[in-house]
Amino acid sequence: MTWVSGAAGSGYGVHHLPYGVFRIGDGEPRIGVRIGELILDLAGAEAAELVLAGGALRRPTLNAFLALGRPQWTAVRQRITELLTDPAHRSAVEPLLVPVSEARMELPFEVADYVDFYSSEQHASNVGQIFRPGQPPLLPNWKHLPIGYHGRAGTVVVSGTPVVRPQGQRPGREGPVFGPSARLDIEAEVGFVVGVPSPLGRRVPAADFAEHVFGVVLVNDWSARDIQAWEYQPLGPFLGKSFATSVAAWVTPLDALRHAEVAGPEQDPPVLDYLRAEPHLGLDLRLAVRWNGTLVSEPPFAGMYWTPAQQLAHLTVNGAALRTGDLYASGTVSGDRRDQVGSFLELTWGGAEPVTVAGEERTFLADGDTVTITATAPGPDGCTVELGEVTGTVRPAN
Amino acid sequence: MTWVSGAAGSGYGVHHLPYGVFRIGDGEPRIGVRIGELILDLAGAEAAELVLAGGALRRPTLNAFLALGRPQWTAVRQRITELLTDPAHRSAVEPLLVPVSEARMELPFEVADYVDFYSSEQHASNVGQIFRPGQPPLLPNWKHLPIGYHGRAGTVVVSGTPVVRPQGQRPGREGPVFGPSARLDIEAEVGFVVGVPSPLGRRVPAADFAEHVFGVVLVNDWSARDIQAWEYQPLGPFLGKSFATSVAAWVTPLDALRHAEVAGPEQDPPVLDYLRAEPHLGLDLRLAVRWNGTLVSEPPFAGMYWTPAQQLAHLTVNGAALRTGDLYASGTVSGDRRDQVGSFLELTWGGAEPVTVAGEERTFLADGDTVTITATAPGPDGCTVELGEVTGTVRPAN
Repeated sequence: MTWVSGAAGSGYGVHHLPYGVFRIGDGEPRIGVRIGELILDLAGAEAAELVLAGGALRRPTLNAFLALGRPQWTAVRQRITELLTDPAHRSAVEPLLVPVSEARMELPFEVADYVDFYSSEQHASNVGQIFRPGQPPLLPNWKHLPIGYHGRAGTVVVSGTPVVRPQGQRPGREGPVFGPSARLDIEAEVGFVVGVPSPLGRRVPAADFAEHVFGVVLVNDWSARDIQAWEYQPLGPFLGKSFATSVAAWVTPLDALRHAEVAGPEQDPPVLDYLRAEPHLGLDLRLAVRWNGTLVSEPPFAGMYWTPAQQLAHLTVNGAALRTGDLYASGTVSGDRRDQVGSFLELTWGGAEPVTVAGEERTFLADGDTVTITATAPGPDGCTVELGEVTGTVRPAN
Repeated sequence: MTWVSGAAGSGYGVHHLPYGVFRIGDGEPRIGVRIGELILDLAGAEAAELVLAGGALRRPTLNAFLALGRPQWTAVRQRITELLTDPAHRSAVEPLLVPVSEARMELPFEVADYVDFYSSEQHASNVGQIFRPGQPPLLPNWKHLPIGYHGRAGTVVVSGTPVVRPQGQRPGREGPVFGPSARLDIEAEVGFVVGVPSPLGRRVPAADFAEHVFGVVLVNDWSARDIQAWEYQPLGPFLGKSFATSVAAWVTPLDALRHAEVAGPEQDPPVLDYLRAEPHLGLDLRLAVRWNGTLVSEPPFAGMYWTPAQQLAHLTVNGAALRTGDLYASGTVSGDRRDQVGSFLELTWGGAEPVTVAGEERTFLADGDTVTITATAPGPDGCTVELGEVTGTVRPAN
């Protein structure tokens, strides 16, 4: 039990301890860990030798810390837990606590490569029905491999960054027309942050997932459906996605999600050997999507067809190297019901069935709209883990 | 005229001066510029104050130099030209020259995002005919926008790096089978290296091409056609490409290619305004592909339908930011004739028409095969610019 007031029993108790990068005023970016409504300044803690990580906590991003690997991640977590629970440390630690409300959060890690998967069966089926009516909703390859593609790492932004409506080509009656996207959408996803790299030419087995992956961030993969629909044949999404991808400011360590582990989905047809993991585990993360404050959907991550360990094994099976800072996202999380979908394309069935948001009828995003994605997961002893939110407000096209 | 013996009249005279990063023995990586069969050690030259770039030439990659921008690129180039032409500098400069044959070349810049276009009409038509026989060879969007997608930046490797044959899923008679790719191919391309970044939310006009792009590298975008064919619907190529992309060790500045500028292709239907550039320019780069030493193809870059300035304008039209080190490649360069194609898929028409390579019948790449791509461009006064080659040898699957 932590001595930090208000933290115990919250979604940010010592059972959680997510990492982020913050600034106070015009100060330099510093690594911190969240406890309740406070941030423990880890740069300061390492400078004071309260926690030791070879200087990795005194950097402007988490990357050096992410590269240390699981034994060090665990050791640092244990030490932080000690500092925040043992009252003997209180007088040394208390001056290093700063209120979340006074901090400006930065992108927590420098993104190396960004990969986006497509691993919810319900989402892929919905999209198939909307875009290819009358045809089988899933393509023949979908249940054999986790479909994925590379996105733009350079436009991954931290939660809170405004999202400028993209311009581009979209289909018109007589050829393409140019202008601001008229079908701007979200994709509620869960991202996995790679810490430990792997060499070129060697695959990473699914069983090594927790040796390479440090933790989890919520992701909003903003999508311009009209731009995407016109451009994506035959090489996949490009400008319909690359204008912005928002990630949460707080990276939740896998260590905080042990109580959220659930049996992975049954997979039929059986998967190839390299995609088998024992145990075969999903994560019981419960997402919530708010559109201008209205709760419009609660996507369940536990039902995702492909697990993050399988995604990692697939991503590297061809010998592709991992780098510290690689981010791979699950793909849009959608459940069986309309109030469990992770995109507005699905929520409004391609724009055909508007929803009421704070008294207004909506299909896609209007300028000024704010979307906030949150998630909780079961923690130890009846506690809840509250993942860092990812939020963004749409600005008019430039 | 340079005083460096053997350089004048070669493809690496003072009219060229490509930049790279080299090591001698176990030494640290150093930035150098190539002159004939020698490398001028620019780290040493900046340390000796023979050339000044704010320390950017004393780094282990070109990125800091790339970020300086065109006025500084031009000033450094002028100064290097002075050093290598004025005999007064000879005694100071000569100790800083090292033979290319003694240097080990490194990846010249840290790749931020890697984008691959698909801008040869002949290549796109050939691929369309091979994969979608009986249908129109080009998809409806192709002449309206430069189709492109993001590749894996973390597996971009320098020329000479062995390429391990990727494993993965490919289509079998009864569902997918797993194993080494049986259709390993090349793609001969030209890559453009971004130096000056652009902010998120603002597009870069085609007219600003030379303010952002520093120069050019040859690219071999190795491709596993069987893996790609099975995985690419609906989100595009992923593992069929991400195992390795080779780039030349030498980055040729745009300044060295002024005499290679040619009128860009006529574009019908007319392009949207944001894709117009005045002047509308292509580059007369003449590629050559050697397979185990046999010249099998000479792809002409001058005929590419979409120009690099148009690709840049398209890439950023949705507000996507540029970062220093971004690399975008042209897509496979193919001309009208079979001996002008930039992939073996086309050379052997999907594997149906084998070619003879050094006395052996071949369709796709065998283990041990070496592919080398070179290119020349017209320079000033009858000189030729010889782009740095990109070469790689296939190793058996792990």
